[in-house]
Amino acid sequence: MTDSWAAFGADLHIEPIGPGLRSGLMDALREAVRTGRLTPGTRLPSSRTLAADLGIARNTVADAYAELVAEGWLTARQGSGTRVARRADAPGPVGRGRDPRARPVRRRPAHNLMPGSPDLSAFPRAEWLKATRRALTAAPDMAFGYDDPRGRVELRAALADYLARARGVYADPERIVICSGFVHGLTLMGKVLRRHKVRRTAVESYGLDIHWNLLAEAGLTTPCIPVDGLGARTGALGEVPGVGAVLLTPAHQFPTGVPLHPDRRAAAVDWARSSGGLILEDDYDGEFRYDRQPVGALQGLDPERVVYMGTASKSLAPGLRLAWMVLPEELVEEVCEAKGGFDWMSGVPDQLTLAEFIASGAYDRHVRAMRLRYRRRRDELVEALAERAPGFRVSGIAAGLHAVLELPEGTEQSVVQAATWQGLALEKLSRFRHQDAEPGRDGLVIGYGTPSESGWAGALDALCRVLP
Amino acid sequence: MTDSWAAFGADLHIEPIGPGLRSGLMDALREAVRTGRLTPGTRLPSSRTLAADLGIARNTVADAYAELVAEGWLTARQGSGTRVARRADAPGPVGRGRDPRARPVRRRPAHNLMPGSPDLSAFPRAEWLKATRRALTAAPDMAFGYDDPRGRVELRAALADYLARARGVYADPERIVICSGFVHGLTLMGKVLRRHKVRRTAVESYGLDIHWNLLAEAGLTTPCIPVDGLGARTGALGEVPGVGAVLLTPAHQFPTGVPLHPDRRAAAVDWARSSGGLILEDDYDGEFRYDRQPVGALQGLDPERVVYMGTASKSLAPGLRLAWMVLPEELVEEVCEAKGGFDWMSGVPDQLTLAEFIASGAYDRHVRAMRLRYRRRRDELVEALAERAPGFRVSGIAAGLHAVLELPEGTEQSVVQAATWQGLALEKLSRFRHQDAEPGRDGLVIGYGTPSESGWAGALDALCRVLP
Repeated sequence: MTDSWAAFGADLHIEPIGPGLRSGLMDALREAVRTGRLTPGTRLPSSRTLAADLGIARNTVADAYAELVAEGWLTARQGSGTRVARRADAPGPVGRGRDPRARPVRRRPAHNLMPGSPDLSAFPRAEWLKATRRALTAAPDMAFGYDDPRGRVELRAALADYLARARGVYADPERIVICSGFVHGLTLMGKVLRRHKVRRTAVESYGLDIHWNLLAEAGLTTPCIPVDGLGARTGALGEVPGVGAVLLTPAHQFPTGVPLHPDRRAAAVDWARSSGGLILEDDYDGEFRYDRQPVGALQGLDPERVVYMGTASKSLAPGLRLAWMVLPEELVEEVCEAKGGFDWMSGVPDQLTLAEFIASGAYDRHVRAMRLRYRRRRDELVEALAERAPGFRVSGIAAGLHAVLELPEGTEQSVVQAATWQGLALEKLSRFRHQDAEPGRDGLVIGYGTPSESGWAGALDALCRVLP
Repeated sequence: MTDSWAAFGADLHIEPIGPGLRSGLMDALREAVRTGRLTPGTRLPSSRTLAADLGIARNTVADAYAELVAEGWLTARQGSGTRVARRADAPGPVGRGRDPRARPVRRRPAHNLMPGSPDLSAFPRAEWLKATRRALTAAPDMAFGYDDPRGRVELRAALADYLARARGVYADPERIVICSGFVHGLTLMGKVLRRHKVRRTAVESYGLDIHWNLLAEAGLTTPCIPVDGLGARTGALGEVPGVGAVLLTPAHQFPTGVPLHPDRRAAAVDWARSSGGLILEDDYDGEFRYDRQPVGALQGLDPERVVYMGTASKSLAPGLRLAWMVLPEELVEEVCEAKGGFDWMSGVPDQLTLAEFIASGAYDRHVRAMRLRYRRRRDELVEALAERAPGFRVSGIAAGLHAVLELPEGTEQSVVQAATWQGLALEKLSRFRHQDAEPGRDGLVIGYGTPSESGWAGALDALCRVLP
């Protein structure tokens, strides 16, 4: 789980404002767009889904959508659903030469506990700049030309060392391919799987729909296997007919936070070996573990059957758009072909800088510092919840940047709505449930890594205020 | 024309070595791979084409290919043709933890006059680093998060100012989309055109097959319109049935170097307006003009019918992977959708740095300095050729980083082969001829921008030595 736009508001915590269901709903949607809670391009839930969520007639929602399309707030396009219009937040004529920086900054929620982002205020600008200086000084001229579609060799070499050391990955630089985010890597793998005639890729019963949708766009169906207290039930893989690959989050299941049990790891690898299937290992925040030794990557068990996928989006910042795949040797060439040659590669200065950042030890230092920061927040969260909501179980707290808070049955929606009213953005657990999954508990997914240091205390207070 | 892997050796200047056609051809191919002239992943010409080029039997070529596949030098895959195997240049087992930087550097041609690259040794490292420092200091925290799929607003604003001023582009930041190279932009436009039910995109009779292939992959056929001394005959667009778009290089036709005549510009815009068609303007090296005032971009004539596409690949370096599209307003949202949201965006530090680099005036200074350098080389080239090959016409020299040298009929192939033997890489004119084009003159496309300053004199000498 990485790179989730889903985590930034694709679900709709909305409640009609004032009297009149339709006009109230329209007001609420306008307000959500105006304040930036719904950003341009965001796809809205279908009218059927939203109507069910709100317990109102579907026609009411459909009418509200249609009027907002007419007003230019939303767009509706066959096959692409209803979306927030681009520039819905910037109405009025656009003048030539207008400086967009003069534009009023879009309002964001006062408190942000959405999962999926690290603390952006902690991006190590000074260290990054130092690494840029060293990297630009050392780079050969040819580095600035067209290059290996796998990415710069300096970065692949630095990652190979780091991943072997820190994550137990069997990582030869020759089998590493740099991509511009996990979603880019998953798209490439979708293409390659389809070329191998794979039609079904199993996914976990909790996860990110953007990933499932991506696989679906590649022509793959995504049956789910259940997640329980030991992680995904990988033993069930053999029972799902026709599955050629499985997408797993072994280090820290997203969003439930469970690490995959050793027996389940073994079962996954056994399945892959016996069926010829492929495991896609999404190691999105494997660096952040608090109470125990880090669990090594699954990939080490069988580098020819596991595609390891890591990213700088959680450890440093999503804006770097740098992620990496460690591939079975036989897939390297195919993935490069799917990538379309060097033209999709990431910018060389950023690649060289990350290489230097890792090789110099700055990456380890940064991860260590952030681990302390996030662990402290995790402890404060657990403490505050124990005091404020002593009956509610908090789980998934051994690692990562988010936790799951179980809620009394039937309260999920109202808590999230109360949060919205308080200007607190967070995500309900059901948001991440696969459509074929068994019904599950109510809960919140709390991204305690997201706020800045100065915003953290306020966000935690706001959270405590909205709990039932 | 930008971002050409085609310009880096996809065509094959090869001649069987020693006695025995098949084994001689195999030796020549092995040698080309070994010396890096044929790089991993490069697609070889079909056996039919190569056989015709060399005047030998097709079976001889097919046999040589098959044996080299068996030996692991090449790979053959249904539908993807015969390619140089990845790692064909790095035989032997790959050990874990091996440092690839310890690997012997692939030999490059002694002299490189291939078109398509600026002088990489001139990348302004110190100025770039200064811009990085200022950009990282000024950036808001949110810049490091998930962001607008169009790209960072700072960069779009800087480009809007620059493009309006330097290229006469109507460039509102709201309609600029950053992409990771011209080829990325063209791929996006291919998708959008297909969504608009366009089936045919006209191209110029000289150009880059990688661009034609990209459009073909998007499901578009690419009929060509002739190029003459006034540029592309855009008046012919109306005569090609069913054309919904045209790809043009108005500032400096690639590779012939002709600027599009004002009448032809007007005809292109008239065609677009009357037919509802779209013009894709590839302004790959519009910055570099030597003997006259720069010609403004075609886009200024009708910003709603022209997609302007520029790049940093020629003005700075291809390794930045930064290019930009200025779109008709109604296409902005569709292009962002085709881009797949923010996940394909370029790295934020590189984007912010380029924004600062442009806004601070460093970009103008760099372009000015490079213009002087390239103009001097252009003058030296013309002078040397006038002395060494007084009968041969040099054309396309008013602008850009390459020139076309006409050759006596029937000598193109032998000159390029002689060059190869001398370790001089250059490209024959016929390499860039569309398959449906009328037969044209023999010639060389000489990329005088490619060598480093220290390599330029030697490359020019080598060129003079191989002329007939």
